[in-house]
Amino acid sequence: MSLSIAHLGPRGTNAETAAAIYKKHLRRGSAIEIKLCPYPGIAQTLWAVAQQTVDLAVVPVENSIEGSVAITLDTLWQVGTLKIHQALELPISHALLSWAQNLSQIRQVYSHPQALGQCQKWLDQHLPQVQLIASSSTTEAIQHLDPKGSMGAIASPRAGQLYQIPLLAPDINDYPDNCTRFWVVSLKPSLGGSHTSLAFSLPANVPGVLVKPLQTFAQREINLSRIESRPTKQSFGTYLFFIDIEADVESAEVQAALAELSSYTETLKIFGSYTILNADLGASPQSPGEF
Amino acid sequence: MSLSIAHLGPRGTNAETAAAIYKKHLRRGSAIEIKLCPYPGIAQTLWAVAQQTVDLAVVPVENSIEGSVAITLDTLWQVGTLKIHQALELPISHALLSWAQNLSQIRQVYSHPQALGQCQKWLDQHLPQVQLIASSSTTEAIQHLDPKGSMGAIASPRAGQLYQIPLLAPDINDYPDNCTRFWVVSLKPSLGGSHTSLAFSLPANVPGVLVKPLQTFAQREINLSRIESRPTKQSFGTYLFFIDIEADVESAEVQAALAELSSYTETLKIFGSYTILNADLGASPQSPGEF
Repeated sequence: MSLSIAHLGPRGTNAETAAAIYKKHLRRGSAIEIKLCPYPGIAQTLWAVAQQTVDLAVVPVENSIEGSVAITLDTLWQVGTLKIHQALELPISHALLSWAQNLSQIRQVYSHPQALGQCQKWLDQHLPQVQLIASSSTTEAIQHLDPKGSMGAIASPRAGQLYQIPLLAPDINDYPDNCTRFWVVSLKPSLGGSHTSLAFSLPANVPGVLVKPLQTFAQREINLSRIESRPTKQSFGTYLFFIDIEADVESAEVQAALAELSSYTETLKIFGSYTILNADLGASPQSPGEF
Repeated sequence: MSLSIAHLGPRGTNAETAAAIYKKHLRRGSAIEIKLCPYPGIAQTLWAVAQQTVDLAVVPVENSIEGSVAITLDTLWQVGTLKIHQALELPISHALLSWAQNLSQIRQVYSHPQALGQCQKWLDQHLPQVQLIASSSTTEAIQHLDPKGSMGAIASPRAGQLYQIPLLAPDINDYPDNCTRFWVVSLKPSLGGSHTSLAFSLPANVPGVLVKPLQTFAQREINLSRIESRPTKQSFGTYLFFIDIEADVESAEVQAALAELSSYTETLKIFGSYTILNADLGASPQSPGEF
């Protein structure tokens, strides 16, 4: 048996690290053959699953500093058929990689917009004059580096090892507790677990329209661990709501809550139930190349 | 009497257009002298008001396609003392400006990350191979353009006129109903109006903790027009909630709701009440230079 997992590439992105940790988790005690497949964008990895080009995708959904990853939520809603098999929480460490001897040489810094956002204060303080350039991933940023050292890239220390680029400044995250949650998604039914994710749209312009959906969970003492709104992109001031609850979709209370919920919502999409895997350092690979 | 208004610069940004429309609105029938002050970032414009360097700031808060402007919400919470004097809704039109003769010449496209996000499908379809480079504003992007035409900038048609750059492709927005809401903020008390904005944090890990805050408004038939969550940046899975309600903060129902609300929240910040100004084309300047 073999499995393919799509992730934002190229090698060395945080999404690839998350995919590699999930691969290790799946392989435990099984002879399954697993292939990681890098894609140039997050939306593309999700569409690759929807179109059955790959079996699974590992996508970032939320960062503890920058908040939700809008493209992931928007694409999950658009595709509509994907189910979550696993959540994975990964500590994020950003480093400035460059061939420069010191910071004063640097004129441009490349990275993924989320990473630039997570190091904004450090950049304002240490490199206030540099041009910030968005790249499609943290490791795509590395490909722009010049041997003269006029450019820097914000990426993980692991990417620095992988591509053998000197680490000019480590731990440049503005907030030390930087963590990203990833979801592993598939077209197959979800496997069940402690958390369930869903999204819905609501009929427009009814006062208190969001209260009833939230009450359906509260009155059954089902904890809501997250609520996120996204514009419908159809008319200004209308939203989709993404909700995570701390219960399995198959439990009697959740089934009752969802039956009631569907009477208040316009469209309701259930992404399934899953467990959360804490990808602490113990679970990480020992060397950057080892997966 | 004179007034200074900070906005994301340089000249020609959508924030400057919004600031100019607000200036026109303020001047109607008064002899007030108003100066627009460009700043290099959104956070800087808000801190300039907090530190009394300027009287007002005009900042983007939400786009109908890309959603909330995280830096605006995060900075408003951090500053804590600013009040909203006016909301302003501006239709957004993005154009590709370049000296290129045709699209095939273009290798790099510069723009503000929100604008790149709002034209993502058009870029994927028409310029799939180009490098996308984040600039600090839509008009800062224009300063990178080369006479050979290997670069393009996404900005407003007005910015094209202002800087005399040819408009290579007009209306490249992925969704035609693209609209941005701006807030005018000040250190002075807000002026009252149809809408009130507030934000709060909640005690952690209590089931249904968000239901009671929302019920305080629903049971008084106060409509909630928007709810947005942002990470607290302190511990993963804890959030701030930003809420807009359709009522004046001085009304008896809202006062009662807020008194009850404050018993559920950890920290509650009220940004005041204001009216919404629709900045349709009639309200816009006739020529790009006229303000």
